[in-house]
Amino acid sequence: MSSQTASIPFATIQQYEQIRERTEYICLPLEPEDTVVQPIVDVSPPKWHLAHTTWFFETFVLRPYLQGYKVFHPKYGYLFNSYYNSVGNRVQRSARSTITRPPLSDIYAYRQHVDENITKLLESIDEDKISEVMKVLELGLQHEQQHQELLLTDIKYILSTNPLLPAYKVSKPLQPFETEPEVKAKYMDVPGGIYEIGYQGKKFCFDNELGVHEVLLNDFQIMNRLVTNKEYLEFMEDGGYSDFRHWLDEGYTMVKSEGLKAPLYWVQEDGAWYRFTVYGLELVDMNSPVTHISFYEADAFANWSGKRLLTEFEWEAASQVYKPRTGNFAETELLEPAPAIAGAKGVQQLYGDTWEWTYSAYHPYPGFTKAPGALGEYNGKFMINQMVLRGGSCVTPQSHIRTTYRNFFHPDKRWQYSGIRLAR
Amino acid sequence: MSSQTASIPFATIQQYEQIRERTEYICLPLEPEDTVVQPIVDVSPPKWHLAHTTWFFETFVLRPYLQGYKVFHPKYGYLFNSYYNSVGNRVQRSARSTITRPPLSDIYAYRQHVDENITKLLESIDEDKISEVMKVLELGLQHEQQHQELLLTDIKYILSTNPLLPAYKVSKPLQPFETEPEVKAKYMDVPGGIYEIGYQGKKFCFDNELGVHEVLLNDFQIMNRLVTNKEYLEFMEDGGYSDFRHWLDEGYTMVKSEGLKAPLYWVQEDGAWYRFTVYGLELVDMNSPVTHISFYEADAFANWSGKRLLTEFEWEAASQVYKPRTGNFAETELLEPAPAIAGAKGVQQLYGDTWEWTYSAYHPYPGFTKAPGALGEYNGKFMINQMVLRGGSCVTPQSHIRTTYRNFFHPDKRWQYSGIRLAR
Amino acid sequence: MSSQTASIPFATIQQYEQIRERTEYICLPLEPEDTVVQPIVDVSPPKWHLAHTTWFFETFVLRPYLQGYKVFHPKYGYLFNSYYNSVGNRVQRSARSTITRPPLSDIYAYRQHVDENITKLLESIDEDKISEVMKVLELGLQHEQQHQELLLTDIKYILSTNPLLPAYKVSKPLQPFETEPEVKAKYMDVPGGIYEIGYQGKKFCFDNELGVHEVLLNDFQIMNRLVTNKEYLEFMEDGGYSDFRHWLDEGYTMVKSEGLKAPLYWVQEDGAWYRFTVYGLELVDMNSPVTHISFYEADAFANWSGKRLLTEFEWEAASQVYKPRTGNFAETELLEPAPAIAGAKGVQQLYGDTWEWTYSAYHPYPGFTKAPGALGEYNGKFMINQMVLRGGSCVTPQSHIRTTYRNFFHPDKRWQYSGIRLAR
Amino acid sequence: MSSQTASIPFATIQQYEQIRERTEYICLPLEPEDTVVQPIVDVSPPKWHLAHTTWFFETFVLRPYLQGYKVFHPKYGYLFNSYYNSVGNRVQRSARSTITRPPLSDIYAYRQHVDENITKLLESIDEDKISEVMKVLELGLQHEQQHQELLLTDIKYILSTNPLLPAYKVSKPLQPFETEPEVKAKYMDVPGGIYEIGYQGKKFCFDNELGVHEVLLNDFQIMNRLVTNKEYLEFMEDGGYSDFRHWLDEGYTMVKSEGLKAPLYWVQEDGAWYRFTVYGLELVDMNSPVTHISFYEADAFANWSGKRLLTEFEWEAASQVYKPRTGNFAETELLEPAPAIAGAKGVQQLYGDTWEWTYSAYHPYPGFTKAPGALGEYNGKFMINQMVLRGGSCVTPQSHIRTTYRNFFHPDKRWQYSGIRLAR
Repeated sequence: MSSQTASIPFATIQQYEQIRERTEYICLPLEPEDTVVQPIVDVSPPKWHLAHTTWFFETFVLRPYLQGYKVFHPKYGYLFNSYYNSVGNRVQRSARSTITRPPLSDIYAYRQHVDENITKLLESIDEDKISEVMKVLELGLQHEQQHQELLLTDIKYILSTNPLLPAYKVSKPLQPFETEPEVKAKYMDVPGGIYEIGYQGKKFCFDNELGVHEVLLNDFQIMNRLVTNKEYLEFMEDGGYSDFRHWLDEGYTMVKSEGLKAPLYWVQEDGAWYRFTVYGLELVDMNSPVTHISFYEADAFANWSGKRLLTEFEWEAASQVYKPRTGNFAETELLEPAPAIAGAKGVQQLYGDTWEWTYSAYHPYPGFTKAPGALGEYNGKFMINQMVLRGGSCVTPQSHIRTTYRNFFHPDKRWQYSGIRLAR
Repeated sequence: MSSQTASIPFATIQQYEQIRERTEYICLPLEPEDTVVQPIVDVSPPKWHLAHTTWFFETFVLRPYLQGYKVFHPKYGYLFNSYYNSVGNRVQRSARSTITRPPLSDIYAYRQHVDENITKLLESIDEDKISEVMKVLELGLQHEQQHQELLLTDIKYILSTNPLLPAYKVSKPLQPFETEPEVKAKYMDVPGGIYEIGYQGKKFCFDNELGVHEVLLNDFQIMNRLVTNKEYLEFMEDGGYSDFRHWLDEGYTMVKSEGLKAPLYWVQEDGAWYRFTVYGLELVDMNSPVTHISFYEADAFANWSGKRLLTEFEWEAASQVYKPRTGNFAETELLEPAPAIAGAKGVQQLYGDTWEWTYSAYHPYPGFTKAPGALGEYNGKFMINQMVLRGGSCVTPQSHIRTTYRNFFHPDKRWQYSGIRLAR
Repeated sequence: MSSQTASIPFATIQQYEQIRERTEYICLPLEPEDTVVQPIVDVSPPKWHLAHTTWFFETFVLRPYLQGYKVFHPKYGYLFNSYYNSVGNRVQRSARSTITRPPLSDIYAYRQHVDENITKLLESIDEDKISEVMKVLELGLQHEQQHQELLLTDIKYILSTNPLLPAYKVSKPLQPFETEPEVKAKYMDVPGGIYEIGYQGKKFCFDNELGVHEVLLNDFQIMNRLVTNKEYLEFMEDGGYSDFRHWLDEGYTMVKSEGLKAPLYWVQEDGAWYRFTVYGLELVDMNSPVTHISFYEADAFANWSGKRLLTEFEWEAASQVYKPRTGNFAETELLEPAPAIAGAKGVQQLYGDTWEWTYSAYHPYPGFTKAPGALGEYNGKFMINQMVLRGGSCVTPQSHIRTTYRNFFHPDKRWQYSGIRLAR
Repeated sequence: MSSQTASIPFATIQQYEQIRERTEYICLPLEPEDTVVQPIVDVSPPKWHLAHTTWFFETFVLRPYLQGYKVFHPKYGYLFNSYYNSVGNRVQRSARSTITRPPLSDIYAYRQHVDENITKLLESIDEDKISEVMKVLELGLQHEQQHQELLLTDIKYILSTNPLLPAYKVSKPLQPFETEPEVKAKYMDVPGGIYEIGYQGKKFCFDNELGVHEVLLNDFQIMNRLVTNKEYLEFMEDGGYSDFRHWLDEGYTMVKSEGLKAPLYWVQEDGAWYRFTVYGLELVDMNSPVTHISFYEADAFANWSGKRLLTEFEWEAASQVYKPRTGNFAETELLEPAPAIAGAKGVQQLYGDTWEWTYSAYHPYPGFTKAPGALGEYNGKFMINQMVLRGGSCVTPQSHIRTTYRNFFHPDKRWQYSGIRLAR
């Protein structure tokens, strides 16, 4: 993580408060029972997210830097460590639903306790520690934003397994743009050449974005928007899920063994396709981007359509060429992908709406090194068997994303807001 | 179920209220999060127990007998059916933790709704339906008492998986009897001959107790109390868990593959043995009966000691000979087994404290027939691969148990209050 | 095992030779590759059977009783021990297909080596050891006969998994009896009363038949022959496999999860039902007894037909009343069940054709004790979770079976020649 | 596959015969039973390899090009198809051990039948088909060479699971070079710049090597030989397998769950390390390259040593700079890795000895397209979740390998001759 500060600006304190508050805001619609279950290993209980993000500040900021700090509870370190071997033993990832106690109210008290002590620390910190603390604090906030996104995806999954299919939100925000008629697919040029890849700015970034390096690319073309549900349905109706020729072998094996026929959350009733959304079950909106698909499905769709996915380097190059860094992020409060804007030019939806699967493995950039100590476990140890996704989604905070941001999931995962952009 | 009544006695209404209230009393110490998780398939979420027992009355009493009854919620039938194929689809047993909604408060409202309507029904019922309704009502209450016992065993298991090992109860009731010094093991005669087995009275019993039949038994002797933790520890310290000669082959395979070394809930710290109880972690009381053991462990212990387990017929015969039908039941509120009474004569602890594993498979008695319709699914379809247990335990309601009562579990199960009595 | 001898009779030596030769005769049609595979854990490789039965004589006869005996190979004890913990480590049951070496020819050399040394021992044995050796020798021969039956069932299973469905035998022996027209089902009386159960003779029996004891039975009626394929097909065509009401719950779960619709080895082609036999794929013979069914299927069929299965005590009582102890055994070389004999009286097929599932758990008789040492592991440690079958089958040697013989398998097993007889 | 021919040269026929003969030569030491088992899904039965390589010629050469050709057996297509969905149904990969019949002798007859028909085809082929046939024929031979390597790795694995640990070969060829003293590790320069990656020649290559493209590399240094057993043992003795900091998270999970402590085939007895080789169990030769390790172990070793693995592009660039394309291949008949040559200069062991794990995912090169039809299933559909290995091994035929050759396995696989080369 690269970060340079001189003193603790007011903006930081305010940002801390805003981000911490937003996490709790996300959990407002939940019943206590919603916050403790773990229907699949990938999905963590919301209560655990609330506590783990707090544990991060307690462990990496308060304990080392706030003199005389007393931990809120001696066992919370064990309960709410995620995967940091350096920090000691922990509850196995698959056993997070055992944490029925402490109850939700205790976790909110824990959050308050830590927040108050962070404020105390920030008001009293030694001049020579400021830069060090600020770096960890910023990492903690970035970390909390990542968990805000996971909270939303995990809550959606939890509610989807409930036989009642309860809605997370009741009313939908107005959409400010024209989204009819459908934006036609076009392919926009990106010139070949040497591109600089990786983060070069002076603000925060994760260690996996460092190691700026040049990459040589050929000319290519990029689709002007994300692939829509309508286009994906054509693939389905053309027998896409039962024609092995479109698929990677491991993907086809998964399709057969799990009987997949549509994206996650799609259900067919009386011939019509519905999908489970944060608003409950809705008719599939044909102009919206397809989402909740695995890499395998993205790749099969691309093969079927005679196109291909981008590499992460091509994506980053394209985003240097086509610059609008706005999009449908968590801040719009829609929390589902929205159709491309009718009449807009250039390349839309590079940011927000859905993460875009790339055909790049999540590997280290040249010269990558893990930080020493626990924070070195943040990214590096996951650099195998996962694919890079780019651009953020409708549940990513806008302030969290960058052109160089590398998200990563195993190619079979479907519970994230993942989608497709084609190249040729 | 056999039951004969003439009119709805006041006692029945009172009994209904008492049993229903006790179920809620059992759940009082729980957090909402405790009520939704399902750490193993055997253990159902407490919220599910609260709702399922209510669903039983709604489905089998209110819907058929209360004219104009409106179900509380159209989906609850799907959510809270346990295993009645006749009644329609249901949530898979292993997926009960998906029911985060309806929240606990809705379930209490559901209970109130059904209780009010039951009262209404009982006040207005047609003369010619009384006998029929009373039978189902009684079955529903017996059923609820069974779930009270399961609630206590399941809550204990849920709390035991929580890394904080929270206690269910804070203070322990006083014990009214002398339990020191240890009662020495003696073997008491039961004469051979023909015994009548099965329920012959005019009160309630389950269908699996019917089919009264004569069984020819040899002379045998029965231990005067349950096997204690002290005796079981001797078995452990004599290498009982690592000497295959004591074990049934499937039991020994389980011991090796799961690394078993002690009863469920026992943990060793600094050389001393503790066990998780409803009061939290406690030193093992050596004079108390051993409990939370599988049939395999009970049988291995018996082999090690040169004795054997009883058959269910021997147990029933012995209980015809040695009559004290009292014991440490749920009503004492101890909820853990207690030591035998010092100085008492005869055979102690036949009832209460721990269920006694017998070496009898849970099979139909001669002439057993399943009732037609859904209630025929109550017992008969489970008559394979399970062993009979007799006598009730410290979490069984005293009013629920009989000499002829047949409980049954698979031989590997350990989460019930199961224990050992020897014969020779 | 009970056995009394005074000296080694010539008949014994001859019997030894005959039984040992028959084992090899059974394996004659096999390719070496057929002898090493293990398609499911239940099925052992034929080569392993050939070697294990030989190991039994080497371990329990030659090593203790033949002075100066040298084991054929120092590692064979490890390779070919089945489940005797007392005798030391062994290849895991599930890993028997790893024994590609020694090749089949070595195993035949091993058999010859042991056979020669057995002959040597029998010619030179001390007078005072004769009785002891004869007992173990007889057990070894009975054991080898059990493995002859398993060889045939395992070979059939192995060939059935081969995509070519090769036949084990080419030509079928002539059937000496009239089997047309179909024998109508009748129910024959067995009077109630006290019956003596268990082995009382002076010849060989297994330890699980000892503990003679009296059992009190009610009057009942027994079907005059085994249930036929025709009758079973009526059950299938009446939706038997999809109506939960006929089934034990664990049976119905298995039917659903494995998609069962017919007995093992049945396949439907163009509307007609075929079954895989030792002669390859054949049209189902409607008058032959149904076989290769699980206990669950036998019990469901009985429920569907409004009858029930017998207990093992009822079976033994009926066979005391209806005495023809002949039947279609392995000696007929048919190796598949045959139709009942037209015009015959009394109760047919009590012996041979198919094992008859009883509704009795395989538990110890009163007073059962395990022999000390390794041979005590023969039967006792399997007395849980299995059901008793009676009467032998078309692959059982006639000389091996008795009225009191107790076979046992888990209720889900289908690869044995198991069938159905009804009672009411 | 790129290949250009004008007529069928005598050399081709000779090459065909030599390659086909060598496959059978590899199987000479096997018993029939060795040829049918499948101890893990990765390992195919040798009989299956013998037949599948023959099926390839029958399916892709004889059936389309030899007029009047009659297939050897109508079912062999079903039995010996590997993964070509286009060609129809097939025996599941995990069920290859069911193919006990046809016996080994039939498979050799099958090979002869196909070989004779290939000869017939090559003698009578139409002028205008020559080029087409030659391409498929060459692919078939390359394919057969791949299976020769797999045969050797699979046979080694099969023998290693046999409790007798039989040797595949009895005597070891003499080694022609000085291999003492140990060659010290040095790091040799490879200059940065633009390198052309992919196959540009006119001979045969696989489709995954096509798509020649330029890659921009930084300066780096490459180790002058492979990592030795001695160096790897230092890692082990330094606690390498129990220090999570060296490991990718999924690798460490595998190490813990499987209890890994050393490379595959290593066993420790009385303090000394042995390894199972094609010559049976031998003391570990400290100067030989470490092999039979997963990517996870290679990467953990690199992290421990403060170096890193190469990318596949760096490897290909280095092999353009350091040119000796010789090595210890299958032709030396050693079939195990050998020490580096004492006194040699430059970079050794780039070819042969062990495949070198690279930190590159097996993905398509730019412009990669799958061939139409069945042969398009050869490589492309496996381009996910696997890592590239380069350089061939001691069981790779020398004539099979190229600088641009891309081998690929999942990062957890250990049964191939895989090893480590470091970069910095």
